[in-house]
Amino acid sequence: MTEDNEAFLEAYLSARKGLIDSALNKYMPAEDAYPPEIFKAVRYSLFAGGKRLRPILCLAAAEAVGGDIETVLPIACALELIHTYSLIHDDLPAIDNDDYRRGMPTSHKVFGEGVAILAGDALLTAAFHLLSRQDLMAGLDPRTLLAVINDIAEAAGYSGMIGGQVVDMQSEGKVPDYETLHYIHSRKTGVMILVAVKSGARLAGATEEEIDALSEYGRNIGLAFQIADDLLNIDGDPILMGKVTGSDKTRGKMTFPALIGVVDSHNKAYQLLDMALAGIACLDSKADPLRLIASYVLERRS
Amino acid sequence: MTEDNEAFLEAYLSARKGLIDSALNKYMPAEDAYPPEIFKAVRYSLFAGGKRLRPILCLAAAEAVGGDIETVLPIACALELIHTYSLIHDDLPAIDNDDYRRGMPTSHKVFGEGVAILAGDALLTAAFHLLSRQDLMAGLDPRTLLAVINDIAEAAGYSGMIGGQVVDMQSEGKVPDYETLHYIHSRKTGVMILVAVKSGARLAGATEEEIDALSEYGRNIGLAFQIADDLLNIDGDPILMGKVTGSDKTRGKMTFPALIGVVDSHNKAYQLLDMALAGIACLDSKADPLRLIASYVLERRS
Repeated sequence: MTEDNEAFLEAYLSARKGLIDSALNKYMPAEDAYPPEIFKAVRYSLFAGGKRLRPILCLAAAEAVGGDIETVLPIACALELIHTYSLIHDDLPAIDNDDYRRGMPTSHKVFGEGVAILAGDALLTAAFHLLSRQDLMAGLDPRTLLAVINDIAEAAGYSGMIGGQVVDMQSEGKVPDYETLHYIHSRKTGVMILVAVKSGARLAGATEEEIDALSEYGRNIGLAFQIADDLLNIDGDPILMGKVTGSDKTRGKMTFPALIGVVDSHNKAYQLLDMALAGIACLDSKADPLRLIASYVLERRS
Repeated sequence: MTEDNEAFLEAYLSARKGLIDSALNKYMPAEDAYPPEIFKAVRYSLFAGGKRLRPILCLAAAEAVGGDIETVLPIACALELIHTYSLIHDDLPAIDNDDYRRGMPTSHKVFGEGVAILAGDALLTAAFHLLSRQDLMAGLDPRTLLAVINDIAEAAGYSGMIGGQVVDMQSEGKVPDYETLHYIHSRKTGVMILVAVKSGARLAGATEEEIDALSEYGRNIGLAFQIADDLLNIDGDPILMGKVTGSDKTRGKMTFPALIGVVDSHNKAYQLLDMALAGIACLDSKADPLRLIASYVLERRS
């Protein structure tokens, strides 16, 4: 990435993150709403310094097809609520048993397991509450909105993200094979990134051709993102990451480096980046942020 | 209840339960879908012999205002998915720590805590997937459907069922007070029963007056149901209940009997029943099933 592009992307990501954080803050009840325990836990995880990649991709996809980002902002934020719930539940002792995330103790370490489970449930439910708020999205066609809700529920559900998490959990310590690994990575992370891009495009009135192009982008970036995560778990900086590295190996997690080694995993990720960029070659300069985000997904250090 | 009414109600509930079970079976993926662990766990809890009270109330409310029950069947089933998820998560060691439900080991006892958490998540997500299936509900106005999704998400969320569960969990061992107890009972159970009735009516094209009447019914029945649960925990038959009784007292749960005693709790429940019936006095004989269900809520033995 050139220095100019880097400076542009940094400013772009920071502005978008600001927009999303401010919208999330507006949509969520105050920390002292009753019962306070749940709202404290919900806000603790939601405002723990996430990169907001999924909502940013959703907005950028809308932008890429000439849409208005304000219109899709609630959808983008709902995706972040779902992402945050999935992190809280994945960190639980019965699942990944992680004590730290983004340099902070995980939800169950601070609030106890019971409240952490319920805070995750609350965020997932709040996502669908936000997705169905016609007062915020009066300009959208209700049938398209219902179709997007259906897509998001499918991506987050047992045939999507949850399916990926189950197989991930049950594959620990097993000899990795490509088919299982691809299932885990494309479901656990990939489908939510894909649906973020697709939803943004669809709600912004994209043509079928544009949706296909953006889906190709989303699918490849989603898988590349997870491979980059695998690699960061090996050679990332624990300070920047806010959590210990090397945990995948200790737990015998099924990862790309475990299957094909570090060098081939790097190559695979860059191959996916090329495919993602080729997918949206037909889109004009309004898709430039998506192009830069694709590189960022691989070059990020946390 | 007269013998005739009892016979009618028994046949009615059994037929409705059959309809709902068959629809749920059709909507849910097969037990051997991949990954099998999650679908086994989902089906284990979903087909564990629940009474299907929430979906039955939803259908009966639609029927009461002259609606077609087939149209609202997916909505009714989605309410049961949410109910089932809430039972799986509430039974977890970190929350109510229950080993048995309906005479069967709870989900985490059979599948482990990790899968039980994810099975609950999957059911909650599947509910919103089902609620947004336009292929099943082509006849419904999409704006009304979005409004119903929003109502259901609100009822199930942090200001509704989850809020009630949090306060319930955190009130164990505390001296009961009416305000807290009313909050717990109306949220933990009441709001989902209320929204079941309201959603059925609304989707069946009820007038505002009819919705108000049915809401009055739903609100009172919801609270009565939870008081009846409190009483069953004291003097219910463990064989019929499929779980140990007396657990509320052991845990110092905030219940109506703990606050006002058994006799006054009985009286309170019957007072709520009267209010529920008065609420729908304006509806004709099509609301008779709702009237009988109201009595059943208090007279049930499990």
